[in-house]
Amino acid sequence: MKPQTLQQLADHVSGTVIGDPNIVIESVSTLQTAGDGQITFLSNVKYLNDVKDTGASAVIIAQESEVEINQIVVQDPYYALQQIVVLIHGYRANKPVGIRDKSNISETATLGDGCHVHDFVTISDNVKVGKNCYFYPGVFIGQDTTIGDDCIFYPNAVVFNDCVIGDRVIVQSNTSIGEDGYGFSTHNGVHHKIPQIGRVILEDDVEIGASAGIERGTLDDTVIGKGTKIGDMVAIGHGTTIGPHCLLVAQVGVSGSTDIGHHCVFGGQVGIAGHLKIGDLTRVGAKSGISGNMEGGKSYLGTPAIDASKAKRSMVILQYLPEMKKRIKALERKLEKLSAGKS
Amino acid sequence: MKPQTLQQLADHVSGTVIGDPNIVIESVSTLQTAGDGQITFLSNVKYLNDVKDTGASAVIIAQESEVEINQIVVQDPYYALQQIVVLIHGYRANKPVGIRDKSNISETATLGDGCHVHDFVTISDNVKVGKNCYFYPGVFIGQDTTIGDDCIFYPNAVVFNDCVIGDRVIVQSNTSIGEDGYGFSTHNGVHHKIPQIGRVILEDDVEIGASAGIERGTLDDTVIGKGTKIGDMVAIGHGTTIGPHCLLVAQVGVSGSTDIGHHCVFGGQVGIAGHLKIGDLTRVGAKSGISGNMEGGKSYLGTPAIDASKAKRSMVILQYLPEMKKRIKALERKLEKLSAGKS
Amino acid sequence: MKPQTLQQLADHVSGTVIGDPNIVIESVSTLQTAGDGQITFLSNVKYLNDVKDTGASAVIIAQESEVEINQIVVQDPYYALQQIVVLIHGYRANKPVGIRDKSNISETATLGDGCHVHDFVTISDNVKVGKNCYFYPGVFIGQDTTIGDDCIFYPNAVVFNDCVIGDRVIVQSNTSIGEDGYGFSTHNGVHHKIPQIGRVILEDDVEIGASAGIERGTLDDTVIGKGTKIGDMVAIGHGTTIGPHCLLVAQVGVSGSTDIGHHCVFGGQVGIAGHLKIGDLTRVGAKSGISGNMEGGKSYLGTPAIDASKAKRSMVILQYLPEMKKRIKALERKLEKLSAGKS
Repeated sequence: MKPQTLQQLADHVSGTVIGDPNIVIESVSTLQTAGDGQITFLSNVKYLNDVKDTGASAVIIAQESEVEINQIVVQDPYYALQQIVVLIHGYRANKPVGIRDKSNISETATLGDGCHVHDFVTISDNVKVGKNCYFYPGVFIGQDTTIGDDCIFYPNAVVFNDCVIGDRVIVQSNTSIGEDGYGFSTHNGVHHKIPQIGRVILEDDVEIGASAGIERGTLDDTVIGKGTKIGDMVAIGHGTTIGPHCLLVAQVGVSGSTDIGHHCVFGGQVGIAGHLKIGDLTRVGAKSGISGNMEGGKSYLGTPAIDASKAKRSMVILQYLPEMKKRIKALERKLEKLSAGKS
Repeated sequence: MKPQTLQQLADHVSGTVIGDPNIVIESVSTLQTAGDGQITFLSNVKYLNDVKDTGASAVIIAQESEVEINQIVVQDPYYALQQIVVLIHGYRANKPVGIRDKSNISETATLGDGCHVHDFVTISDNVKVGKNCYFYPGVFIGQDTTIGDDCIFYPNAVVFNDCVIGDRVIVQSNTSIGEDGYGFSTHNGVHHKIPQIGRVILEDDVEIGASAGIERGTLDDTVIGKGTKIGDMVAIGHGTTIGPHCLLVAQVGVSGSTDIGHHCVFGGQVGIAGHLKIGDLTRVGAKSGISGNMEGGKSYLGTPAIDASKAKRSMVILQYLPEMKKRIKALERKLEKLSAGKS
Repeated sequence: MKPQTLQQLADHVSGTVIGDPNIVIESVSTLQTAGDGQITFLSNVKYLNDVKDTGASAVIIAQESEVEINQIVVQDPYYALQQIVVLIHGYRANKPVGIRDKSNISETATLGDGCHVHDFVTISDNVKVGKNCYFYPGVFIGQDTTIGDDCIFYPNAVVFNDCVIGDRVIVQSNTSIGEDGYGFSTHNGVHHKIPQIGRVILEDDVEIGASAGIERGTLDDTVIGKGTKIGDMVAIGHGTTIGPHCLLVAQVGVSGSTDIGHHCVFGGQVGIAGHLKIGDLTRVGAKSGISGNMEGGKSYLGTPAIDASKAKRSMVILQYLPEMKKRIKALERKLEKLSAGKS
């Protein structure tokens, strides 16, 4: 940890100090748990009241608060938080281990300068690795796969053969990249496995969560675009392409051969059918099911997913269904009576 | 297996023998498959008829049955079953292997007496392990993590750095504890990774299923309370706290920063949004979606989840929606006609 | 890759050549990306227009097309595609490695001829393996497990003790077979672990996807029938039996003690409760929730799942719920007025 004065932090994030610029901030914490020497943040005005009660020495905030507390006022407090956590705490320090002798690296594999390979790692024939990559124990890299610079493969991550991994890619633990797609041809009631000859391409700055699986394509490649972040236990089907800067939260499932645009956001447990086109900047609420093409730039919700605000209104009504059914029945009876009385 | 007489079993579970106390029970099986020398159980009166047809030599049951079969009558048959399976069959016997020479244990790690470490296990710097822990092949324990007594880590389980694991914790195969939380700050369309400086704390008697993932906290810790049991492929988000003695069945997903009370039960594939408060003794039906705070002590169902019995009534009506829409239309027409005729 | 003439391919799949039988096909690709020397396929008439635009040298098709392109006309184009991909590209070639010296094979285990065991593989006591099996790095096979011929275990696949694996079984990476079932007896608010003494049986030609989990049975066995294909991140509960030739797509969850017939198809993220009977040839749409026994031979959809066409009609109506509620209210008012005016 590298303590900083409040002024140093404000300078680092191009913010303005309210209060004492000389106090020393030693670490970062949340509104609820922060104490002396800690800085916290308010990214959602919903929690404004918590600022009063915080024990923090300072708060990162979008607008100067009347609460008597040291503040860094900055346009995007959550981004400032990120910058400050990186500055004070930094990312996980991966212990330099060099090339351990209980690893198994093919003689035909090449590794750039500054790579670290733990025990129990397998790097197969003709693999090409760039500079400063880090391989935790139990990692497997299949033959002919290419990896860029500054990548991290966490314990037991598996990358199959012929994949292409960009720079600064992070693959979390127990995750599979390029396993066979779920591709079978059913003939006379028997499912015949189709060789999956496509690859997986992870572009620069992609991160894949734990126990996720990115299937290789049957014929075409599966592509995850630059800067896209994929959560734990996400399943991506064979031949699907996801554009740059998307967010796929935990347990999302995307079937095969679907094309997803850039800057899309899918909440947890969303399911997306195969062979669809999802436009740029699409946002889909958690647990929704997408079964058709989606126009970009909009928010969707529900199964099947429709316009999110419309879906929310419908969801609220769901609980009144039994009552509605009764009211229809009552109306029918009354109307029947009325008609009868009339004639 | 350690065979027992029916009387010995009854004594072990504080039950009463009906029939022959001297028959020898050699193993335990289900009503449908049990045969000679086997004991079975009836925990749900729904299956009472199956008792007549069972080939078992004895049955564990809550109330004496008129069926002519040897019985152990006991208040909680399913708990008695558990005790009897432990007595006769016991838990998986983990082969004593000592410290294998193809493991990699840091010189600064400490292991208590009676630990077993298989080949291909990594135990990193400054890890502290209690007594009688068992590490299957492919397990990785990150630096500065603390582990209590009598824990079992199944093959390829991964525990990241700085985590705290209590006593008698079980982590099933291919599961990740303390991987980075899904925490990004989006600025100008780019997602910036926030260092995840919180820890994961698994309290005593926690069990985590296969291919699950418990994210470490961004700033605060992620905590799984004493005795809580988590199923396969469950995703727990960063900074979430789950109270003691909860059950989270397979494929449940909980987003970050949610607080869950004690003795809650979540059915399979339930999804829970972030930053929520879920009261003690909450029960949520399978596949439900929780998007708001939930009062404890109640049962919920549906997406969004509402009172379970209300939700069930609504779900039954769903199939009548097209009919209801038609009936409304018909009512409108009739009323129109009636009004027209009237005026 | 083994290039073939169009005639050779047609003969291989018992199809008819339209066009030049002597052109050489070097590889297989999709309609959209195929170029010179490549063959593609049309399995769905929906994409008939794409045939005009393809750059492929030939197309596999069910009925002769008027488009001027070389064709193989065959009854089941997708099955023909499978056969042709196998012929030209073949399945993944697993590098012959013999028995590597950094593996750990028990002296009491037996392996048939032609097995390959990578470094960092553990094969435990009394394991029996047939011929030509391939074990990638990080695989763990528990004691007393039996494995047939021609199986492939991808990196970090885990098979627990006492399981029975047939011939030609494929287990993808990071997957668990036979981990403990989620079986606890709750007594006085504490969950007591029940030893899981059942086994897992994978019959011939089963394939299990990445990061999946097949729980062993509590008392009975968990059985996956011959030729059944299971996707990534699928969770199968303890004591469940699945018949032959089923398809369970990614992220499906099946609770314990459910019996599923043969040739059933479950779309992605389907959830199935425990202790149910699902008939043969049942088809369930993606994301559905099954909470009761299902008659075979039918298609179901929704949560709870009902007849699929009925469910689709209801789903379409969901968005009109707020409107329907208003219309009921309006009807009530009008009728009230009408009645009042009348009396």
